[in-house]
Parts: sequence; C-alpha cells; structure tokens
Amino acid sequence: MTKNTKVNAAILIIGNEILSGRTQDTNTGTIALWLNSIGVKVQEVRIIPDIEKTIIDIVNELRKINDYVFTTGGIGPTHDDITASSISKAFCLDYEIHKKAYKILEAYYKPGEFNEGRQKMVWMPKDAKLILNPTSGAPGFSVENVFCLPGVPSILKSMLGGLKNEIVGGEPIVSHTISLKTVESEIANSLTDVQDNNKDVEIGSYPFFQAGKLGVSIVIRSEDQLKINKCSSEILEFVNQKKIEIVIR
Amino acid sequence: MTKNTKVNAAILIIGNEILSGRTQDTNTGTIALWLNSIGVKVQEVRIIPDIEKTIIDIVNELRKINDYVFTTGGIGPTHDDITASSISKAFCLDYEIHKKAYKILEAYYKPGEFNEGRQKMVWMPKDAKLILNPTSGAPGFSVENVFCLPGVPSILKSMLGGLKNEIVGGEPIVSHTISLKTVESEIANSLTDVQDNNKDVEIGSYPFFQAGKLGVSIVIRSEDQLKINKCSSEILEFVNQKKIEIVIR
Repeated sequence: MTKNTKVNAAILIIGNEILSGRTQDTNTGTIALWLNSIGVKVQEVRIIPDIEKTIIDIVNELRKINDYVFTTGGIGPTHDDITASSISKAFCLDYEIHKKAYKILEAYYKPGEFNEGRQKMVWMPKDAKLILNPTSGAPGFSVENVFCLPGVPSILKSMLGGLKNEIVGGEPIVSHTISLKTVESEIANSLTDVQDNNKDVEIGSYPFFQAGKLGVSIVIRSEDQLKINKCSSEILEFVNQKKIEIVIR
Repeated sequence: MTKNTKVNAAILIIGNEILSGRTQDTNTGTIALWLNSIGVKVQEVRIIPDIEKTIIDIVNELRKINDYVFTTGGIGPTHDDITASSISKAFCLDYEIHKKAYKILEAYYKPGEFNEGRQKMVWMPKDAKLILNPTSGAPGFSVENVFCLPGVPSILKSMLGGLKNEIVGGEPIVSHTISLKTVESEIANSLTDVQDNNKDVEIGSYPFFQAGKLGVSIVIRSEDQLKINKCSSEILEFVNQKKIEIVIR
C-alpha cells in the first residue's frame, strides 16, 4: 500500500462482559487513537458475545471489507477464551501448539508453573505470526490482516508498539478542535455553510459541560492540514462575527 | 411477548467522535445495565460513522433480527446530526415537523429562542412516538422497535426511565460474582468442568488487579436463580479444595 491511499480498519470487541454492561470497554479508544496516528481510520466497531459461530462469521465479514481487523479479548486460559480456536476455523487453519509461543511461555514462567491452563494460551491458528507481550508473556497473534489482542487494557496497550511495523497506514489523520462558549443551535446554520464549502473535510459538533457552563467543541478532521486550516478560518470568521467567546479546554 | 421468552436487543452507537477515539462511549454500559434489569439481553453493539447509507443499511439489518434496537447520537441541531432523517429513509417514512415535539420545544424555550437551529430537532419520521427528555427538552423518538436517543450520556440516562413501559422484557438476567485471589490458569480446568456441567448458564472469567495483587472474578449469569446457586456451589467446592482465598471487591 502506498501513502495517500485511504487505509481502513474495523475493531471487533469479543466479550459477554462488555455486552452485559459489567465492564466498560476502553480498548476501542486506545486502538483508534493509535491507528489515527499511523494513518488508519476506524470505520466500524462491533461488540459481540463469546459465541464461536458469531466470531467466525463476523471475522470473515470484516476481514474482506477492511484493510485491517483488530480483535480484543478471548485469548486467555479459561473456557470462555475461544478467539484463537474461532479464528483458526474462520481461516480454515489447524488449531495447534505454536512452537515459538510455547518456548516464550516456557521461559517466562518458573519451572513447574507452565501448567495445563497456561499451555492453552499457546494454541493458535497454524503458522500465526506472534504479537509480543512485554507485560505478561502470553503473545497475541495475527493471521493475514486480522490481529488478535488481549482484552485487559494495560496489556493491550503495551503490545501496540510492537505492531507498528506490521501496519502500513496512509497519511495520518489530523484534527483541529475549536471550543466555543455557545450552544449548538446558535452556530448550526453557519457550520452547515462551512461544511457545504468543504465537503471532503469531516466537521463534527459536540456539546460539552465545563464548570457548569455549556459549550460546543467543533472538531475538524482531514488528512490534509491545508484543508483544515481553510475550514478553521471560515469557522473563526463566523465566530468573530457572532462575537462568540473561544474557550480553552 | 410473554414472560420467559428471551428478549434481545442491539445497540447502535452513531458518531465519528467515538470511532476516532476522541470520545469514550459510555452509553453502551448505561443502556445494557438498564436492559438487563428489565430482562432484555444485548446481543450486539455496533459503532458506525455519521454516514446516511451506513445508518439506513444497519438499522434495517438490526431491526429485523432483534426485538429492540437502541440508537444513540445524531439527533441534535447541527449538520452532522442525521439520525432522524436516516431513520425516516430506513422506514420509508416522510421526514417532517413533529407537531407535538414542536409544541414541547416552543414551550421549553423563552420567546424568541426557539430559532431555526433548534427547530431542526423537531423534524422526525412521520408519526414517530416521542421519548420525553426531562433534562434539555428536545425529545428522542421511536419508530416500531427502533428507539432513538441522544449521544450526551447525562441526557440519555435521564430519558431511559420514561421508556420502561415501552419495553417488554423476559425474565430479568441475574448475575452472581465470585472474586478470588488467584490467576486464571490455576482454575481454568475446574471452571471448564463446571461450565460443562451447567451448559445453559453463562460463566465468565475476568482477571483483575487490585491493590497491586492479581485476582479473578468469576461471573455467573442466567435468568434462573436456582441454576446460578447450583453453579456457584460447584465453584465454591473447587475453591475450597484448592484453598483459594475469596476476595471482597
């Protein structure tokens, strides 16, 4: 993939605990911010239960329409960790002991501690590429364009750095935020005009509360800094005309 | 729908700001916990961008395979708020001024403040049913089994109570958590045995860090309290045998 191409990704969050509301997902934000910084845009996130057929079907759907797919969750040692076996089935690959992963965990644990439960974590799709885990040993893995990461946020975060050379992004997506002491309805029409003038720039409007006061953050996003600058000055023009105060957040 | 039926829902989070990682979604957890309490199980969450065709396609897909669909985001006054017009197209309904919503907002704002920007918020699918908003006036709406809520978490929360009579749930899903001072690999095999003995109960295993120590929470979920009790005592049996400490969280 050459630069300037648009590069897309999907994130697949696997886990009943997110769907039940018991656990708050934060991995989406972590992965999305990191992908943005290397020029990959997340176009879809799905959160699904620990059900083999669902995982297989959705991985197969997403990997065909996205440059990259990132899964989180389900690669630990317990019975509800079924991501590795499901990915094997999705790609019609054998699910087997990964020799390099076995060696890593054998060296990681003290003698006698590399028990049957832990050994489950080295079962992977045949010839999967490992994603090293500097926090807790057990590696993630990738098959073609599907990258499987753990669900524990601190461990996931520590593994992204090692993936950088595996992902080829386009131009990084740049964003600029203008925060205003106003309400959305006061600026809605002017903002529509700016968006109509700048169709290939993404302009979002997000109300916020700060110190008991209402405000609106306008976020301008594009791969092209010049386009952001043009858009930004058009916004500042109506902001000045309307005498709206700019807020530092 | 009668009690004892399984009732399912999907949540559709609409907004570029979630996909970019700028904003952390918390609405999924809020809606999921509330739905659990009235016997509705969330079986899927999707996060999608503010693109009309995507919204239409996915709403039409989800509403056919779920008892209920909840959307969040995109019902404010700005150009990027396209949920109401997209839902109109998804149902092939006219997108028009909703007279009751107009009256509500006309009464809510001071004279002269119900400007063109705010008037956009009363455009809805024809004959949509309103979802009242005790926080900031502008109502959400539903069409058939699709319920459209705002993206701002505090406003969304305040609107769920008013929906209670619109949703017919099954038996509430009960959960019981046992937290242990251990690691997953120590209990993985025993837990697999318990899951095999209790196939219609959902058992999840979630590692945690607390005060610098590792632990595992085992979460047992079912509509049937007796099944949870049976499962729970089988777990406590191996916990005692293995002399694992129970932790209060």
